Amino acid sequence: MSSAWLLPEHIADVLPHEARRIEELRRLMLDAARGFGYELVMPPLLEHLESLLSGTGHELNLQTFKLVDQLSGRSLGVRADTTPQVARIDAHLLNRVGVTRLCYCGPVLHTLPSGLHGTREPLQFGAELYGHGGLEADLEVQELAIDCLARAGLSGLVMDLADARVLDGLLSHAPANPVRLEVIQQALAAKDASTLAAATDDFAPELRDGLRALPELYGDDEVLAAARERLPRQPVISAALDDLQWLSRQLRAAHPEVRVGFDLADLSGYAYYSGTRFALYAPGGRDTLARGGRYDNVGEVFGRRRPAVGFSLDLKAVVEHVGFDGRRAAIRAPWGEDAGLRAAVRRLREQGEAVVCVLPGHEQEADEFECDRELVAVNGAWVVRAC
Amino acid sequence: MSSAWLLPEHIADVLPHEARRIEELRRLMLDAARGFGYELVMPPLLEHLESLLSGTGHELNLQTFKLVDQLSGRSLGVRADTTPQVARIDAHLLNRVGVTRLCYCGPVLHTLPSGLHGTREPLQFGAELYGHGGLEADLEVQELAIDCLARAGLSGLVMDLADARVLDGLLSHAPANPVRLEVIQQALAAKDASTLAAATDDFAPELRDGLRALPELYGDDEVLAAARERLPRQPVISAALDDLQWLSRQLRAAHPEVRVGFDLADLSGYAYYSGTRFALYAPGGRDTLARGGRYDNVGEVFGRRRPAVGFSLDLKAVVEHVGFDGRRAAIRAPWGEDAGLRAAVRRLREQGEAVVCVLPGHEQEADEFECDRELVAVNGAWVVRAC
Repeated sequence: MSSAWLLPEHIADVLPHEARRIEELRRLMLDAARGFGYELVMPPLLEHLESLLSGTGHELNLQTFKLVDQLSGRSLGVRADTTPQVARIDAHLLNRVGVTRLCYCGPVLHTLPSGLHGTREPLQFGAELYGHGGLEADLEVQELAIDCLARAGLSGLVMDLADARVLDGLLSHAPANPVRLEVIQQALAAKDASTLAAATDDFAPELRDGLRALPELYGDDEVLAAARERLPRQPVISAALDDLQWLSRQLRAAHPEVRVGFDLADLSGYAYYSGTRFALYAPGGRDTLARGGRYDNVGEVFGRRRPAVGFSLDLKAVVEHVGFDGRRAAIRAPWGEDAGLRAAVRRLREQGEAVVCVLPGHEQEADEFECDRELVAVNGAWVVRAC
Repeated sequence: MSSAWLLPEHIADVLPHEARRIEELRRLMLDAARGFGYELVMPPLLEHLESLLSGTGHELNLQTFKLVDQLSGRSLGVRADTTPQVARIDAHLLNRVGVTRLCYCGPVLHTLPSGLHGTREPLQFGAELYGHGGLEADLEVQELAIDCLARAGLSGLVMDLADARVLDGLLSHAPANPVRLEVIQQALAAKDASTLAAATDDFAPELRDGLRALPELYGDDEVLAAARERLPRQPVISAALDDLQWLSRQLRAAHPEVRVGFDLADLSGYAYYSGTRFALYAPGGRDTLARGGRYDNVGEVFGRRRPAVGFSLDLKAVVEHVGFDGRRAAIRAPWGEDAGLRAAVRRLREQGEAVVCVLPGHEQEADEFECDRELVAVNGAWVVRAC
């Protein structure tokens, strides 16, 4: 009984002053997405497992809590990522011919935390653009992600670009079984040069050198030149590098305040990416705030393979980088049955004021709200004055 | 594979035009609660089962999805009701001496739907007031509930008052085992007179007649007079009837637009109520929109028994009663690398406009947004004009 109030590890309550900041961020970002023409959808927390996990890869499967449906006996999952759900909505429910822009905001659950201090219940906000394969869509989504974080008051943002086609192109020529491919990918993700060297020892020189070069291909513009030098001259890799160059030029022109760079070995996040990718970091570059990219295949399992690009972020992580602006002012009012008093309280609330009624017997308690004014009777009229 | 997009029964996506309305309601109601001085909290979706379910009764247990925590091996539950969580926050985390007002808004999951058309994933909004045992708290919460629905544009509301002490007082004198008490409660909830008669046949006449009278004690003011006549003269029952009389008088004075009545056999909702209760209905009185009341014991399991009163509602249910105001206007803009165009788009979005960029090749597609204006170049300047 004494532990009844202990929460599971990596699960936490959000208390008032942080909850208010998160709610403000939520509104800012949903309004930003709406400003770009993205329509809000609300997919459910629960789905059939095969719908949640088809085509999304092993990592998402491990992250997903499983349940049994008492109505059908079938296996359900609590979503660990909203992106595949929104792809399902685009493919099946809306099924529009043209470009579709959708956004969402809601909790997801993870069986295991990502990192020592990670939460298992991120509040995921994201936006997705379907139906356009050109880079204009990638750019629009990247600019929306920047705009969301900028509206949250974050400055000094760092944006790293990558492209899933670089590694896909390299590995398409690798004479390796799935286990070895997994080892290579993990070594790349961890920038573990010795494991990478061992796992690629018997590859053709061009392929081996290309894979070994990847972990070093991060930084500013010189990265693209080095990549053209050190990676095999495959058309798909060249196309990826051209696309990254175009995107970086566009982003720098539109957002000189964001430091745009490259990290060609960035493999974080889920396995569904198929083209350009990006990560937005807080100043200093350590904490990832948002991730996104192109995943043209994600709707295929729902009967509709079409271009898709999007991003998502965790509002609970973003809020830690946002300054706190203090408690908002409120008006303290007495409690009473007087009709004039009650009408005055009601009118103030209709005007958008927070009015805290002091209930009988609680006159001496400290305000949780910052009451900088009070409602008092002066000559038979109820007026607001400073206190 | 062909069923990958079918959702579980009583689980649904919320598509754009309804999602936008729900988001608007969410903001209106959170702002209403803030106007009354209620601070937002965000309890987690997942908790240890014994924390979620202690003291809340059998019904909530059956409604709760259970999971195993891979980190601890312990049993977890996905919340089916947020009220006990907020009580835990008041008792343990905030632990304030005085009055505490909290509100919340987030999804809950139910193993089984409530009714033929019910959802298993309500979006629960609610508010709770702790630390004041007087009726002023009950009244404040009732007025906040009315205000939330009024701000949503609902009129013709019907409010039914009840009190858990009436039945508790009656049953405290019943010489019956728990199974029989359960039968009696179910018969009362279903207003099933014959089962009720059979189950109370051997009770003392005063008690038997009181229980049998309950299902008939609904309606307007005459109900209170009839209750004083037909129910046993126990102090706890008299106190409850006095409280209901005071509340109904206050509510009618403050909210003449709401039809206030009584339903003394109302037993819907969870088992934690301990005092006055209320239900708000849409015009016609069939669909319940909000429920609330006093539950002074709910924090006890967390080490802090103190007065508590609150209410909650399902935004997905409320939105069905709210008129739809059509799509909001947006501005259509061409896509281009021109710096002046991009600056114009950005400026309009900063002003709160929704600007939809038509991506190359998609010029002939129908707008999903109602684009009533377009951004065009006139004499080298980008201007907005009607279209």
